[in-house]
Amino acid sequence: MRARDLARTYVTVRLDAVAAEAARTMARERLPGLIVCDESDRPWAVLPGSQVLRFLIPAHVQADPALAAAYDEASAEQVCRGLQVARVRDVVPARRRLEDLPVVEEDATVLEVAAVMARVHSPLVAVLRDGRVTGAITVGDLLEHLLETTA
Amino acid sequence: MRARDLARTYVTVRLDAVAAEAARTMARERLPGLIVCDESDRPWAVLPGSQVLRFLIPAHVQADPALAAAYDEASAEQVCRGLQVARVRDVVPARRRLEDLPVVEEDATVLEVAAVMARVHSPLVAVLRDGRVTGAITVGDLLEHLLETTA
Repeated sequence: MRARDLARTYVTVRLDAVAAEAARTMARERLPGLIVCDESDRPWAVLPGSQVLRFLIPAHVQADPALAAAYDEASAEQVCRGLQVARVRDVVPARRRLEDLPVVEEDATVLEVAAVMARVHSPLVAVLRDGRVTGAITVGDLLEHLLETTA
Repeated sequence: MRARDLARTYVTVRLDAVAAEAARTMARERLPGLIVCDESDRPWAVLPGSQVLRFLIPAHVQADPALAAAYDEASAEQVCRGLQVARVRDVVPARRRLEDLPVVEEDATVLEVAAVMARVHSPLVAVLRDGRVTGAITVGDLLEHLLETTA
Protein backbone atom coordinates (compact mmCIF):
# COMPACT_ATOMS: atom_id res chain seq x y z
CA MET A 1 0.00 0.00 0.00
CA ARG A 2 1.46 3.30 -1.12
CA ALA A 3 0.48 6.96 -0.88
CA ARG A 4 -0.97 6.87 -4.40
CA ASP A 5 -3.44 4.14 -3.34
CA LEU A 6 -4.76 6.17 -0.40
CA ALA A 7 -4.82 9.55 -2.14
CA ARG A 8 -8.09 11.18 -3.10
CA THR A 9 -8.76 14.14 -5.33
CA TYR A 10 -8.36 17.24 -3.23
CA VAL A 11 -9.10 20.89 -3.68
CA THR A 12 -6.08 23.10 -4.31
CA VAL A 13 -6.06 26.90 -4.51
CA ARG A 14 -3.57 29.26 -6.08
CA LEU A 15 -1.74 31.93 -4.10
CA ASP A 16 -3.50 34.65 -6.09
CA ALA A 17 -7.06 33.36 -5.50
CA VAL A 18 -9.47 35.60 -3.53
CA ALA A 19 -9.29 34.56 0.13
CA ALA A 20 -13.09 34.60 0.56
CA GLU A 21 -13.45 32.05 -2.24
CA ALA A 22 -10.94 29.75 -0.56
CA ALA A 23 -12.77 30.09 2.77
CA ARG A 24 -16.10 29.41 1.05
CA THR A 25 -14.73 26.22 -0.53
CA MET A 26 -13.39 25.08 2.83
CA ALA A 27 -16.76 25.73 4.47
CA ARG A 28 -18.83 24.11 1.71
CA GLU A 29 -16.76 20.96 1.45
CA ARG A 30 -16.15 20.76 5.22
CA LEU A 31 -12.42 20.47 4.65
CA PRO A 32 -9.89 20.75 7.47
CA GLY A 33 -7.69 22.83 5.17
CA LEU A 34 -6.78 23.60 1.57
CA ILE A 35 -3.59 22.89 -0.33
CA VAL A 36 -2.14 26.14 -1.64
CA CYS A 37 -0.09 25.93 -4.85
CA ASP A 38 2.12 28.44 -6.64
CA GLU A 39 1.60 29.43 -10.28
CA SER A 40 3.30 26.20 -11.44
CA ASP A 41 1.02 24.00 -9.28
CA ARG A 42 3.85 23.24 -6.88
CA PRO A 43 2.72 22.98 -3.27
CA TRP A 44 3.31 26.14 -1.27
CA ALA A 45 1.49 25.57 2.01
CA VAL A 46 -1.49 23.97 3.66
CA LEU A 47 -4.00 26.58 4.75
CA PRO A 48 -6.02 25.45 7.79
CA GLY A 49 -9.38 27.04 8.54
CA SER A 50 -8.11 28.41 11.85
CA GLN A 51 -5.45 30.35 9.94
CA VAL A 52 -8.18 32.14 7.98
CA LEU A 53 -9.66 33.18 11.32
CA ARG A 54 -6.25 34.31 12.57
CA PHE A 55 -6.08 36.60 9.56
CA LEU A 56 -9.57 37.99 10.23
CA ILE A 57 -9.49 38.54 13.96
CA PRO A 58 -7.22 41.32 15.22
CA ALA A 59 -4.32 40.00 17.33
CA HIS A 60 -5.38 41.84 20.51
CA VAL A 61 -8.83 40.25 20.27
CA GLN A 62 -7.31 36.79 19.83
CA ALA A 63 -5.19 37.38 22.91
CA ASP A 64 -8.28 38.23 24.97
CA PRO A 65 -11.42 36.65 23.49
CA ALA A 66 -13.54 38.45 26.09
CA LEU A 67 -12.89 41.57 23.99
CA ALA A 68 -14.63 39.87 21.07
CA ALA A 69 -17.82 39.73 23.12
CA ALA A 70 -17.98 43.51 22.80
CA TYR A 71 -18.24 43.29 19.00
CA ASP A 72 -21.75 43.17 17.58
CA GLU A 73 -22.99 41.47 14.39
CA ALA A 74 -22.26 44.56 12.32
CA SER A 75 -18.60 44.43 13.34
CA ALA A 76 -18.50 40.74 12.45
CA GLU A 77 -19.57 41.72 8.96
CA GLN A 78 -16.91 44.36 8.79
CA VAL A 79 -14.24 41.91 9.96
CA CYS A 80 -15.21 39.51 7.19
CA ARG A 81 -15.01 42.08 4.45
CA GLY A 82 -11.26 41.67 4.81
CA LEU A 83 -11.58 38.32 3.04
CA GLN A 84 -13.25 39.84 -0.01
CA VAL A 85 -10.21 41.91 -0.91
CA ALA A 86 -7.41 39.71 0.44
CA ARG A 87 -5.67 37.09 -1.67
CA VAL A 88 -4.72 33.66 -0.40
CA ARG A 89 -1.07 34.81 -0.33
CA ASP A 90 -2.01 37.42 2.31
CA VAL A 91 -3.66 34.80 4.51
CA VAL A 92 -1.23 31.85 4.44
CA PRO A 93 1.48 31.77 7.07
CA ALA A 94 4.95 32.84 5.92
CA ARG A 95 6.52 30.19 3.71
CA ARG A 96 8.10 27.52 5.83
CA ARG A 97 11.05 25.30 5.02
CA LEU A 98 10.19 22.71 2.39
CA GLU A 99 10.67 19.88 4.92
CA ASP A 100 7.95 21.39 7.11
CA LEU A 101 5.37 21.08 4.34
CA PRO A 102 2.99 18.13 4.66
CA VAL A 103 3.88 16.51 1.31
CA VAL A 104 4.86 12.98 0.31
CA GLU A 105 5.86 11.33 -2.94
CA GLU A 106 3.35 9.01 -4.65
CA ASP A 107 5.32 5.91 -3.70
CA ALA A 108 5.65 6.79 0.01
CA THR A 109 4.66 3.97 2.37
CA VAL A 110 1.74 4.28 4.78
CA LEU A 111 4.15 4.79 7.67
CA GLU A 112 5.99 7.55 5.81
CA VAL A 113 2.67 9.34 5.32
CA ALA A 114 1.83 8.89 9.02
CA ALA A 115 5.27 10.12 10.09
CA VAL A 116 4.96 13.31 8.02
CA MET A 117 1.44 14.00 9.31
CA ALA A 118 2.56 13.45 12.89
CA ARG A 119 5.66 15.60 12.61
CA VAL A 120 4.01 18.53 10.86
CA HIS A 121 0.80 18.20 12.97
CA SER A 122 -1.29 18.37 9.83
CA PRO A 123 -4.78 16.94 9.20
CA LEU A 124 -3.79 16.22 5.59
CA VAL A 125 -0.76 15.63 3.36
CA ALA A 126 -0.46 16.44 -0.32
CA VAL A 127 0.69 13.63 -2.62
CA LEU A 128 3.17 14.63 -5.34
CA ARG A 129 4.20 13.31 -8.75
CA ASP A 130 7.10 15.15 -10.39
CA GLY A 131 6.75 17.91 -7.79
CA ARG A 132 3.10 18.60 -8.61
CA VAL A 133 0.08 17.85 -6.42
CA THR A 134 -2.00 14.90 -7.65
CA GLY A 135 -4.19 14.45 -4.56
CA ALA A 136 -4.17 14.31 -0.79
CA ILE A 137 -4.58 11.95 2.15
CA THR A 138 -6.54 13.08 5.22
CA VAL A 139 -5.80 11.87 8.72
CA GLY A 140 -9.24 10.18 8.66
CA ASP A 141 -8.31 8.18 5.54
CA LEU A 142 -5.02 7.16 7.10
CA LEU A 143 -6.42 6.13 10.50
CA GLU A 144 -9.10 4.11 8.74
CA HIS A 145 -6.50 2.22 6.75
CA LEU A 146 -4.22 1.67 9.75
CA LEU A 147 -7.06 0.39 11.92
CA GLU A 148 -8.43 -1.89 9.19
CA THR A 149 -5.04 -3.54 8.94
CA THR A 150 -5.05 -4.35 12.64
CA ALA A 151 -8.76 -5.10 13.16
CA MET B 1 -26.42 34.75 16.72
CA ARG B 2 -24.80 32.93 19.62
CA ALA B 3 -22.64 29.84 20.05
CA ARG B 4 -25.68 27.75 20.99
CA ASP B 5 -27.28 28.53 17.59
CA LEU B 6 -24.23 27.33 15.65
CA ALA B 7 -23.43 24.29 17.80
CA ARG B 8 -24.04 20.80 16.54
CA THR B 9 -24.05 17.51 18.39
CA TYR B 10 -20.50 16.33 18.59
CA VAL B 11 -18.77 13.14 19.59
CA THR B 12 -17.03 13.22 22.95
CA VAL B 13 -14.83 10.50 24.43
CA ARG B 14 -13.84 9.82 28.01
CA LEU B 15 -10.23 9.77 29.15
CA ASP B 16 -10.51 6.07 29.98
CA ALA B 17 -11.87 4.98 26.57
CA VAL B 18 -9.71 2.65 24.46
CA ALA B 19 -7.59 4.76 22.11
CA ALA B 20 -8.30 2.55 19.09
CA GLU B 21 -12.05 3.14 19.51
CA ALA B 22 -11.51 6.90 19.58
CA ALA B 23 -9.36 6.70 16.44
CA ARG B 24 -11.97 4.51 14.74
CA THR B 25 -14.71 7.05 15.50
CA MET B 26 -12.58 9.87 14.16
CA ALA B 27 -11.91 7.91 10.97
CA ARG B 28 -15.51 6.78 10.46
CA GLU B 29 -17.07 10.18 11.02
CA ARG B 30 -14.28 12.04 9.21
CA LEU B 31 -13.82 14.34 12.19
CA PRO B 32 -10.85 16.69 12.52
CA GLY B 33 -10.65 15.79 16.22
CA LEU B 34 -12.58 14.53 19.23
CA ILE B 35 -13.55 16.32 22.42
CA VAL B 36 -12.10 14.48 25.40
CA CYS B 37 -14.02 14.75 28.69
CA ASP B 38 -13.18 13.69 32.22
CA GLU B 39 -15.40 11.40 34.30
CA SER B 40 -17.77 14.32 35.08
CA ASP B 41 -18.16 15.21 31.37
CA ARG B 42 -16.08 18.33 31.81
CA PRO B 43 -13.89 19.11 28.77
CA TRP B 44 -10.32 17.97 29.19
CA ALA B 45 -8.75 18.42 25.76
CA VAL B 46 -9.35 18.29 22.04
CA LEU B 47 -7.63 15.29 20.50
CA PRO B 48 -6.67 15.93 16.87
CA GLY B 49 -6.05 13.00 14.52
CA SER B 50 -2.42 14.00 14.03
CA GLN B 51 -1.89 13.59 17.79
CA VAL B 52 -2.98 9.95 17.54
CA LEU B 53 -0.29 9.50 14.89
CA ARG B 54 2.28 11.25 17.10
CA PHE B 55 1.52 8.67 19.76
CA LEU B 56 1.90 5.79 17.30
CA ILE B 57 5.00 6.80 15.39
CA PRO B 58 8.28 6.68 17.33
CA ALA B 59 9.82 10.14 17.77
CA HIS B 60 12.99 9.33 15.83
CA VAL B 61 10.89 8.23 12.85
CA GLN B 62 8.84 11.45 12.99
CA ALA B 63 12.07 13.43 13.00
CA ASP B 64 13.25 11.65 9.85
CA PRO B 65 10.30 10.31 7.83
CA ALA B 66 12.74 8.66 5.41
CA LEU B 67 13.31 6.13 8.20
CA ALA B 68 9.62 5.22 7.99
CA ALA B 69 10.16 4.06 4.43
CA ALA B 70 12.21 1.19 5.84
CA TYR B 71 9.21 -0.17 7.78
CA ASP B 72 7.11 -2.76 5.98
CA GLU B 73 3.38 -3.48 6.28
CA ALA B 74 3.98 -5.92 9.11
CA SER B 75 5.65 -3.19 11.17
CA ALA B 76 2.74 -0.87 10.42
CA GLU B 77 0.48 -3.46 11.99
CA GLN B 78 2.73 -3.70 15.00
CA VAL B 79 2.80 0.06 15.42
CA CYS B 80 -0.99 0.16 15.44
CA ARG B 81 -1.36 -2.49 18.09
CA GLY B 82 -0.32 0.23 20.51
CA LEU B 83 -3.77 1.76 20.08
CA GLN B 84 -5.55 -1.43 21.15
CA VAL B 85 -4.07 -1.32 24.65
CA ALA B 86 -3.68 2.43 25.14
CA ARG B 87 -6.36 4.59 26.70
CA VAL B 88 -7.27 8.04 25.46
CA ARG B 89 -5.49 9.51 28.50
CA ASP B 90 -2.20 8.05 27.22
CA VAL B 91 -2.65 9.64 23.81
CA VAL B 92 -3.84 13.18 24.58
CA PRO B 93 -1.19 15.85 25.05
CA ALA B 94 -0.43 16.82 28.66
CA ARG B 95 -3.26 18.88 30.17
CA ARG B 96 -2.93 22.48 29.14
CA ARG B 97 -4.06 25.57 30.99
CA LEU B 98 -7.83 25.94 30.93
CA GLU B 99 -7.57 29.10 28.84
CA ASP B 100 -5.78 27.15 26.10
CA LEU B 101 -8.71 24.78 25.68
CA PRO B 102 -10.97 25.50 22.69
CA VAL B 103 -14.17 26.00 24.68
CA VAL B 104 -16.83 28.75 24.75
CA GLU B 105 -19.96 29.37 26.77
CA GLU B 106 -23.35 28.84 25.08
CA ASP B 107 -24.02 32.56 24.87
CA ALA B 108 -20.65 33.48 23.30
CA THR B 109 -20.90 35.67 20.20
CA VAL B 110 -19.75 34.52 16.77
CA LEU B 111 -16.64 36.67 17.07
CA GLU B 112 -15.80 35.21 20.47
CA VAL B 113 -15.97 31.73 18.94
CA ALA B 114 -13.77 32.85 16.05
CA ALA B 115 -11.26 34.48 18.41
CA VAL B 116 -10.91 31.31 20.50
CA MET B 117 -10.51 29.12 17.40
CA ALA B 118 -7.91 31.47 15.97
CA ARG B 119 -5.93 31.77 19.19
CA VAL B 120 -5.87 28.08 20.02
CA HIS B 121 -5.42 27.07 16.34
CA SER B 122 -8.19 24.52 16.66
CA PRO B 123 -10.50 23.16 13.94
CA LEU B 124 -13.33 23.00 16.49
CA VAL B 125 -14.50 24.48 19.79
CA ALA B 126 -16.64 22.80 22.41
CA VAL B 127 -19.76 24.66 23.59
CA LEU B 128 -20.46 24.53 27.34
CA ARG B 129 -23.49 24.87 29.58
CA ASP B 130 -22.73 24.80 33.33
CA GLY B 131 -19.23 23.57 32.54
CA ARG B 132 -20.42 20.53 30.57
CA VAL B 133 -20.12 19.96 26.82
CA THR B 134 -23.41 20.33 24.96
CA GLY B 135 -22.04 20.40 21.39
CA ALA B 136 -19.33 21.84 19.20
CA ILE B 137 -18.73 24.27 16.36
CA THR B 138 -16.31 23.36 13.57
CA VAL B 139 -14.28 25.91 11.64
CA GLY B 140 -16.33 24.95 8.56
CA ASP B 141 -19.59 25.83 10.33
CA LEU B 142 -18.16 29.12 11.48
CA LEU B 143 -16.69 30.19 8.14
CA GLU B 144 -19.98 29.34 6.46
CA HIS B 145 -21.89 31.57 8.85
CA LEU B 146 -19.39 34.43 8.61
CA LEU B 147 -19.36 34.34 4.81
CA GLU B 148 -23.15 34.13 4.56
CA THR B 149 -23.40 37.28 6.64
CA THR B 150 -21.14 39.16 4.24
CA ALA B 151 -22.27 37.58 0.95
